[in-house]
Amino acid sequence: MSHDNTARAWAYLSRVAEPPCAELAGLVRSVGPVEAAERIRRGEVGPSLAEHTVARREIDCAADDLDLLQRRGGRLVTPDDDEWPLLAFTAFDGTAVRERQRGGLPLALWVTGPVRLDEAAQRAASVVGTRAATAYGQHVAADLSAGLAEHEVTVISGGAYGIDGAAHRAALGSDGQTVAVLAGGIDVLYPAGHSALLHRVGTSGLLVTEYPPGVRPARHRFLTRNRLVAALSAATVVVEAGLRSGAANTAAWARALGRVVCAVPGPVTSAASAGCHVLLRNGAELVTRADEVLEIVGRAGEFAEDQPHPCGPLDGLTDIERQVYEALPARGARSPDEIAVSSGLPPVAVLGPLAMLEIAGLARRQDGRWRLVRSTAMPGPRE
Amino acid sequence: MSHDNTARAWAYLSRVAEPPCAELAGLVRSVGPVEAAERIRRGEVGPSLAEHTVARREIDCAADDLDLLQRRGGRLVTPDDDEWPLLAFTAFDGTAVRERQRGGLPLALWVTGPVRLDEAAQRAASVVGTRAATAYGQHVAADLSAGLAEHEVTVISGGAYGIDGAAHRAALGSDGQTVAVLAGGIDVLYPAGHSALLHRVGTSGLLVTEYPPGVRPARHRFLTRNRLVAALSAATVVVEAGLRSGAANTAAWARALGRVVCAVPGPVTSAASAGCHVLLRNGAELVTRADEVLEIVGRAGEFAEDQPHPCGPLDGLTDIERQVYEALPARGARSPDEIAVSSGLPPVAVLGPLAMLEIAGLARRQDGRWRLVRSTAMPGPRE
Repeated sequence: MSHDNTARAWAYLSRVAEPPCAELAGLVRSVGPVEAAERIRRGEVGPSLAEHTVARREIDCAADDLDLLQRRGGRLVTPDDDEWPLLAFTAFDGTAVRERQRGGLPLALWVTGPVRLDEAAQRAASVVGTRAATAYGQHVAADLSAGLAEHEVTVISGGAYGIDGAAHRAALGSDGQTVAVLAGGIDVLYPAGHSALLHRVGTSGLLVTEYPPGVRPARHRFLTRNRLVAALSAATVVVEAGLRSGAANTAAWARALGRVVCAVPGPVTSAASAGCHVLLRNGAELVTRADEVLEIVGRAGEFAEDQPHPCGPLDGLTDIERQVYEALPARGARSPDEIAVSSGLPPVAVLGPLAMLEIAGLARRQDGRWRLVRSTAMPGPRE
Repeated sequence: MSHDNTARAWAYLSRVAEPPCAELAGLVRSVGPVEAAERIRRGEVGPSLAEHTVARREIDCAADDLDLLQRRGGRLVTPDDDEWPLLAFTAFDGTAVRERQRGGLPLALWVTGPVRLDEAAQRAASVVGTRAATAYGQHVAADLSAGLAEHEVTVISGGAYGIDGAAHRAALGSDGQTVAVLAGGIDVLYPAGHSALLHRVGTSGLLVTEYPPGVRPARHRFLTRNRLVAALSAATVVVEAGLRSGAANTAAWARALGRVVCAVPGPVTSAASAGCHVLLRNGAELVTRADEVLEIVGRAGEFAEDQPHPCGPLDGLTDIERQVYEALPARGARSPDEIAVSSGLPPVAVLGPLAMLEIAGLARRQDGRWRLVRSTAMPGPRE
């Protein structure tokens, strides 16, 4: 079956290189997942991608992985799916982000839970912090998360002990939506002491990971995972963080991705708040209550409603046209060269698709630069 | 004696109108204190100033006031004295400040203590906050003030219970300099429970007030006093403040006067920190330790060294020239009209003095606006 072929290709690709892998993403963008998987299996790829895939290219447990996922009621969400959080992931378009180590767009996401990922990310805030949380920090994390959940804001976190756990628990306790982004496979609930909590998150909210089943969390995977926590949230709230906490890494991703970084102050005598105070001295927004976060997420939500949504009009596009469309920035305009870089296509190859997008009323040229047409309700020639 | 005449005139003027009184300040600037006192006594003043002085113009207890001050080892510091904190008070030049209710320069200051006021203000931070301080707030106030005092920064505060008291005490305990700005007469130590503390401040640091002896603190005087706390300090640090605390008023003055407003964060669950968090959300600088305040005061100190100091070259100036000189801004340039407003002289009267200042190498014209010449080491014609 064609669909199965594609799904198996995505599952294979998800494991064959340690994500995110820019070379792999580029290949998939230009030839599609099935052909990309085939070339990698045969070793017919450039030297850099060969190096990233040589260790695992002969492992093919895609069918088993998809079986396991299916048994858990999950799905592999890819850029081909409506559920792909396209709006949230436009943040990865910035070159500065892609150039950061492990700063690329995820290839595909292993997901379980009854909520649509794109919808969960539409109005979301992450609540993160140190595992070594104080009673104060846990109280504030729970209070903030409950307040957000009660106002239909998805609470995103990393499932860790301390602040993360308090955030997930409070969202669940308020019958709200919560998403845990994991640093390992969907079947590796970590930390072990949170397996019951994460199971609940996966049955009423979402468990999300870019790692295939069986992959164990590791230090570099926590850091890579943090960028997804930040990308899926309009605002990242650091509740408590020591001076060398992983939460500061999530905050750095949030800033790099153009998200609002918030921090909760605490006693200056508390080491668990020292990282928050450093963030606040460096421009993070000080928040004390859920409604202050709601205001930020609300602003982002209003903005998101202005954004084009990949519905109707995109269906008639070729793959290349769609690729070029996705390379247009959410705000502002880009030169054809920038669009080429962003889409991974050669510069000469983007002009035709841009013209077609203009005819379809999806893009517009202005002073030699191209921008999205916001309202796709009335496509047609420009006035 | 001429000197006594002048001192008596200042003392009389200090009581005759509730300070600050812009009309009174204007009259003193243009005719000097002795003539101003004479005219007020005789009722030969404009209707507005008459209104402000009618209630007290026949009271003359200047000699008694000066006697009391002398017995306490104090002095009345006026703009004629070297001790006048001229640099700190250039902050009052901004029209925005003068237009605020009670926003003017003080006329004269009643001072006791072994420290020179101008020197104390050269490297100073105010540490202020709520009377209803928590143990946390008192601890942090003491810690900050001790750290500042140990680094030769004067700790300025308002002598109140709570944060103010903790700040003065810690500075005294570190053998540092501390200044209490009072909202009543130098002989009215308020609150009564702090009379011993304030006495110690007045014998090793400074007690400062613009109110003559016997004047009792009142609500409007606390607010008026707060502007002097702010003006005398490069940075105002609010340690704890409720949502309607007087410390927020001091912070507002500090901002209006171009000072750095700092606030100490605390638990978001503590009402005593709520005012600090509001300040921080509105642009105040978050500080957690004395060295962060030192950095700000250090910056201000370096800047102050660039400032002209009213030494040598000013001695040869006429009163009007000096008045115009003092109306030039510390940074940037002003038009003759602005200088007229700032000096209280008619516009036509400032051009002659400006030309004389230019010849003396003290001022310079640029595009029709006038600025101070920073280095007065080599006065002479411009290149």
